[in-house]
Amino acid sequence: MPLQTRIEQTLNSAIDRATANSAPPYLCQALHSAVFPGGARIRPQLCLSVAQACGDTAPNVANAAAAAIELIHCGSLVHDDMPCFDDAALRRGKPSIHKAFGDPIAVLTGDTLIVQAFETLAQAADEAPDRVAKLVALLARYTGSPYGICAGQAWESESEVDLRAYHQAKTGAMFIAATQMGAVASGADPYLWHELGARIGEAFQVADDLRDVVCSEAELGKPTGQDAVHARPNAVQRLGLDGAVAHLNNVLGGAIASIPSCPGEAQLCAVIHATSQRLAPTQLQNNTAAE
Amino acid sequence: MPLQTRIEQTLNSAIDRATANSAPPYLCQALHSAVFPGGARIRPQLCLSVAQACGDTAPNVANAAAAAIELIHCGSLVHDDMPCFDDAALRRGKPSIHKAFGDPIAVLTGDTLIVQAFETLAQAADEAPDRVAKLVALLARYTGSPYGICAGQAWESESEVDLRAYHQAKTGAMFIAATQMGAVASGADPYLWHELGARIGEAFQVADDLRDVVCSEAELGKPTGQDAVHARPNAVQRLGLDGAVAHLNNVLGGAIASIPSCPGEAQLCAVIHATSQRLAPTQLQNNTAAE
Repeated sequence: MPLQTRIEQTLNSAIDRATANSAPPYLCQALHSAVFPGGARIRPQLCLSVAQACGDTAPNVANAAAAAIELIHCGSLVHDDMPCFDDAALRRGKPSIHKAFGDPIAVLTGDTLIVQAFETLAQAADEAPDRVAKLVALLARYTGSPYGICAGQAWESESEVDLRAYHQAKTGAMFIAATQMGAVASGADPYLWHELGARIGEAFQVADDLRDVVCSEAELGKPTGQDAVHARPNAVQRLGLDGAVAHLNNVLGGAIASIPSCPGEAQLCAVIHATSQRLAPTQLQNNTAAE
Repeated sequence: MPLQTRIEQTLNSAIDRATANSAPPYLCQALHSAVFPGGARIRPQLCLSVAQACGDTAPNVANAAAAAIELIHCGSLVHDDMPCFDDAALRRGKPSIHKAFGDPIAVLTGDTLIVQAFETLAQAADEAPDRVAKLVALLARYTGSPYGICAGQAWESESEVDLRAYHQAKTGAMFIAATQMGAVASGADPYLWHELGARIGEAFQVADDLRDVVCSEAELGKPTGQDAVHARPNAVQRLGLDGAVAHLNNVLGGAIASIPSCPGEAQLCAVIHATSQRLAPTQLQNNTAAE
């Protein structure tokens, strides 16, 4: 079964669970809208790719891990779009959750998606309770504080920012979750998979910085130039356009070099290479690691 | 060790974990302020009381379950106090989190406490991974949607409210979580413990309705008369003052009667009886089950 099918089916089951029976209708609509149709699903694809590279010995556990990561990601976008953070009116080309459903439902949609992520992991526990307990610990670590996206976002409320901690927590964390949780789902050692996630996270951050500068709002489906508006650090501002593209290539090269020895190593290299092609803005792809 | 000590120690470890190392200082202050000093800690005490009644066969797992429930409760209070919900300026006699730290930190404090609840469960997994996986499932069920406090709160955004689903999810859910998770932590069957949690939850809702009507703001440490302000259903409005007190006594009697046969049954009856005395507003205690 293609990875994309595994991801969408597991996400569908999760949202079906959260919207079943007596759930309040408005919350149900918002939960569905926050998750479908999805974005590129890069994190869950990375998670399943690593699980496959490690032998895919418990596919349902791997599916749950991948979907849980995407649910957290979707929930964090709902909260980040709210007026007290980015005040974004658009997400994936349609009104953001707070615009469509109001602030109360936006808070609760984010909360519910975070909770449903853990519930999705727990649903797979019969197959391998020890692996699921480790997955819960990893997902919590990279979602909460001090190492997770909550802490990452909270750095934006500080007057003095630890930039390394900020980027690692805000963007890197969910990529590290993806590689480590993919490994654990297949019974492999998560420690070996930290570096790959961290490097892909760094590449993603640089690519995101590039897109914020060179893409149009229509291409991205959300406002651009936001880093300048919110005075957030941006690699293009720091390194220049050519410098940022060169840095992206270096980071992606390092990511591929860091892949641990595993049964599906060659295939995973190809997947990361393909992902890297999708990361860079189309306007710049001739200059990136695509070749 | 007294239950209160077990609860506070485990909560301290959880907040230490979330505020360790490179965590953003402002978020750290808010996390601490949201959990300490606590309220009555009724839910975690109920959880540990049930765990003890069932033999307390894995005390660290029970401690984690109790603390996880309280972390979810504290996180939900932080979000509920926000301007888009109750817009409460006070909580436990001091400024609410959004008043003291701003809306962004309030959102992230609630998110982080939800996540830390699951991390706290995962920390106890080495002792009994199968029990912890079941605890994760129960905590998620009674926190998220359709049966949890997120769904309960979301009913307030609906024009037509399923009152039974609303009360059960908003108030009952965390009491059911407390009894069922206490049982699971000690290896007992959670299904037998559903009714006790549901009845105590109902009693708590009636007692809360009474306090909202008869107590002063100084006594509660938060604004009173809020049900009338927000046009929320209230048992005193529905049954009258005497009717609501009589209903509270009936529900508490039913709660004690529902306690399943277990090693610590007699002691648990005494605990529930003592809890019931604390539930009713002091002005009314001569009329309640306190006798």
